[in-house]
Amino acid sequence: MSANATRQVRLGVVGLGRAFSLMLPTFLADQRVRLAAACDPREAARQQFARDFDAPVYEDLAAMVTSPDLDAVYIASPHQYHAAHACLAAEHGKHLLVEKPMAISLAECDRIIEACGRGGVRVIVGHCHSFDSPYLHARQLIASGRFGAVRMIHALNYTDFLYRPRRPEELQTEAGGGVVFSQAAHQVDVVRLLAGAPATRVRATLGRWDPARPTEGAYGAMLWFEDGAYASLTYSGYGRFDTDPWNGGFSEMGFATREADYGRARRKLASIGSADAEARLKADGTYGGPSWQAPAGAERALSNQHFGPVIVSCEHADIRPMPDGIWVYADSQREHIPLPAPAVPRFEVIDELVDAVVHGREPLHDGAWARSTLEVCLAMLTSAREERDVTLTRQARASPHPADVSPVA
Amino acid sequence: MSANATRQVRLGVVGLGRAFSLMLPTFLADQRVRLAAACDPREAARQQFARDFDAPVYEDLAAMVTSPDLDAVYIASPHQYHAAHACLAAEHGKHLLVEKPMAISLAECDRIIEACGRGGVRVIVGHCHSFDSPYLHARQLIASGRFGAVRMIHALNYTDFLYRPRRPEELQTEAGGGVVFSQAAHQVDVVRLLAGAPATRVRATLGRWDPARPTEGAYGAMLWFEDGAYASLTYSGYGRFDTDPWNGGFSEMGFATREADYGRARRKLASIGSADAEARLKADGTYGGPSWQAPAGAERALSNQHFGPVIVSCEHADIRPMPDGIWVYADSQREHIPLPAPAVPRFEVIDELVDAVVHGREPLHDGAWARSTLEVCLAMLTSAREERDVTLTRQARASPHPADVSPVA
Ligand SMILES: NC(=O)c1ccc[n+]([C@@H]2O[C@H](COP(=O)([O-])OP(=O)(O)OC[C@H]3O[C@@H](n4cnc5c(N)ncnc54)[C@H](O)[C@@H]3O)[C@@H](O)[C@H]2O)c1
Ligand SMILES: NC(=O)c1ccc[n+]([C@@H]2O[C@H](COP(=O)([O-])OP(=O)(O)OC[C@H]3O[C@@H](n4cnc5c(N)ncnc54)[C@H](O)[C@@H]3O)[C@@H](O)[C@H]2O)c1
Repeated sequence: MSANATRQVRLGVVGLGRAFSLMLPTFLADQRVRLAAACDPREAARQQFARDFDAPVYEDLAAMVTSPDLDAVYIASPHQYHAAHACLAAEHGKHLLVEKPMAISLAECDRIIEACGRGGVRVIVGHCHSFDSPYLHARQLIASGRFGAVRMIHALNYTDFLYRPRRPEELQTEAGGGVVFSQAAHQVDVVRLLAGAPATRVRATLGRWDPARPTEGAYGAMLWFEDGAYASLTYSGYGRFDTDPWNGGFSEMGFATREADYGRARRKLASIGSADAEARLKADGTYGGPSWQAPAGAERALSNQHFGPVIVSCEHADIRPMPDGIWVYADSQREHIPLPAPAVPRFEVIDELVDAVVHGREPLHDGAWARSTLEVCLAMLTSAREERDVTLTRQARASPHPADVSPVA
Repeated sequence: MSANATRQVRLGVVGLGRAFSLMLPTFLADQRVRLAAACDPREAARQQFARDFDAPVYEDLAAMVTSPDLDAVYIASPHQYHAAHACLAAEHGKHLLVEKPMAISLAECDRIIEACGRGGVRVIVGHCHSFDSPYLHARQLIASGRFGAVRMIHALNYTDFLYRPRRPEELQTEAGGGVVFSQAAHQVDVVRLLAGAPATRVRATLGRWDPARPTEGAYGAMLWFEDGAYASLTYSGYGRFDTDPWNGGFSEMGFATREADYGRARRKLASIGSADAEARLKADGTYGGPSWQAPAGAERALSNQHFGPVIVSCEHADIRPMPDGIWVYADSQREHIPLPAPAVPRFEVIDELVDAVVHGREPLHDGAWARSTLEVCLAMLTSAREERDVTLTRQARASPHPADVSPVA
């Protein structure tokens, strides 16, 4: 493939749902990509896409994937389809941007990686919050060695994840539902990035305490790394206490958290009668649906995105990536390194995509990387069920310098 | 013993060090106790005590304990002496207020409890932060059942514990040093109080990353309870990131945290050449020492005391005890229950002491209770060393209503 800095990546979208809606501001603002096709069984979404992008739409991927006018596909379909969609697209020579989690079993991940090998294409797994600039910059600071080795990482996040409208399978662990597949996929990825060394074992415990939402809504986990560092992770998606005020007062997407919104997700859900109605509510609020709102050009985020407070304790400093910068609590003084809100949200995903597709560079968030995160998530489920440590055997080594992030201001 | 509400408890102090200095404002302000004697090998401390209280002083407990003018002793000597001091005093018929941790082995705890049985006296272990009103009130809220069962507790605390001046044995784990014996003793006690049910197992990991302070300075732990609840605990005493701003901006003692103080503990210590000099520095800054400052009557705390942020997730609410009140994040709304700063700091300790000594009531923080906390701490050390879950076998059941705390304002 000829490297050409100005060449646009032509992207086909698989699944025009919530994840796509969240990536849409990026796709609209970043000139390095162009939305060139989409497939989704939802007709309203297809019509919206055809109107918005004057591009072909399809009912399924099989029809779209034969198009010669696509460089890559963005797979944002439900978890249980990631593997089939990814393999199909890779076999047709399309590079892959696959939403997290990569898939729901290690065998599926293996199949995707093999298909990419056969198809001669690259796979990037994301968006995932480990793409957020503060974590990438924090990793660079750590990798510089100035503060000594990483010894302990603490990551916590309290959200309303479990009470956002869901498809039925999002509430079934066997189908890839629950916060371990959907949210630990972010938190573990962030922690692994910051730790640098491969993880070796995990001990976890799960919270399932709303019988109406019978999947994991919370977890606690300890994770150990080859170099002796350890991490503790705490997550609740039960929509009560919220950690955003501990992280600068910014929402996950970098907007101001609204106090008046307390309990909104649970309240909205309370009026819904059935699982079907709930799935409809989700679809209605997403791309092309009757209650969907197109991203307003003016509504620019106040900060980088984030996945809750994280503190990395190194031998000589605690490093705290926050949405608006990084606090370095060193031996004799502390310092705040500001990181302004990006002009294009999630531009980091496009950085890696363009690097891979246009420049042929190996992405940080590649298949082996994302499979490692899934291995940890699956081990969390096993550890909780069997009440024991689970040894990890398929952990990829992170590249020492995770990404060419622009130098800190 | 005849119950007499106005009778003062005559207290003999064993060890006039930092713990005593921290209890002194309580003893001075609470008319229900009177400091009636003290023993300490430090002459400066004895002289100061004799001047301040016009009371007899002794070089050691053996001399003091025969005095008929003492109802109880407050044992605030180094950890390794707690058991011997407690047994001696109990055998002489003195009730016991023993600083945390109760002792450094379960056998020692057993001996203390037996000695109390033989002496017909009660033992209270504290001060410990589980005496702090916000935790006691939170426990009452939880025990009311209004919010359903406890499912998950998260407790975290980042302090400068490891860099405060220390005696040599405070940096030796075998001698009861390090943050597990000194700080988990608080955090585990708080978590057990809030959980209510007996703990069943623990998995922990330890941080020892400053070779100049070769004991535990950090830990992570998961704790499971009989009713299926679990807790995750995170602690760092490495003096960098500080969790106080996440807990209302109050220091452990309920004062305003001072931003300008960043790195002070480590800076001060850096000028000390030897372990001897460091121990001297500690003694000099404590009761009767040349750099000790008597508590100014006017300096009243702004809030209750605390041991870092804690979030208790129940089935229907997250309960967050904070120094100035309790946040209840319930299904549809959140509520703040204010808890004003007490007129007498740590009055809760005197509540329990008077209840036990004057009214003959069984204290919450009794020997079996404190032994349970020590069992968890010891299990944390074992779990980290042997890299496995440790089953707990000697956990006391908490009384359903921990204390007669005054009704919430
Ligand atoms: N990175 C993030 O911030 C983020 C946020 C939300 C979701 N996600 C991830 O995105 C993925 C999708 O989740 P979601 O919340 O957007 O779900 P969703 O239900 O909102 O969207 C899924 C979309 O896929 C469509 N679809 C279903 N079957 C399809 C098929 N066979 N072919 C093509 N399209 C199909 C649906 O009609 C729907 O429009 C998941 O992997 C999820 O974890 C990521
Ligand atoms: N609850 C709290 O907030 C708190 C705070 C600090 C310490 N503590 C606890 O208090 C206890 C003492 O720790 P510290 O920091 O005050 O130590 P310290 O060194 O400041 O004080 C110990 C005192 O005991 C004296 N002493 C030593 N041997 C003695 C003996 N044989 N008989 C009588 N006195 C003796 C020492 O001279 C010293 O004055 C420990 O159990 C510690 O965990 C509790």
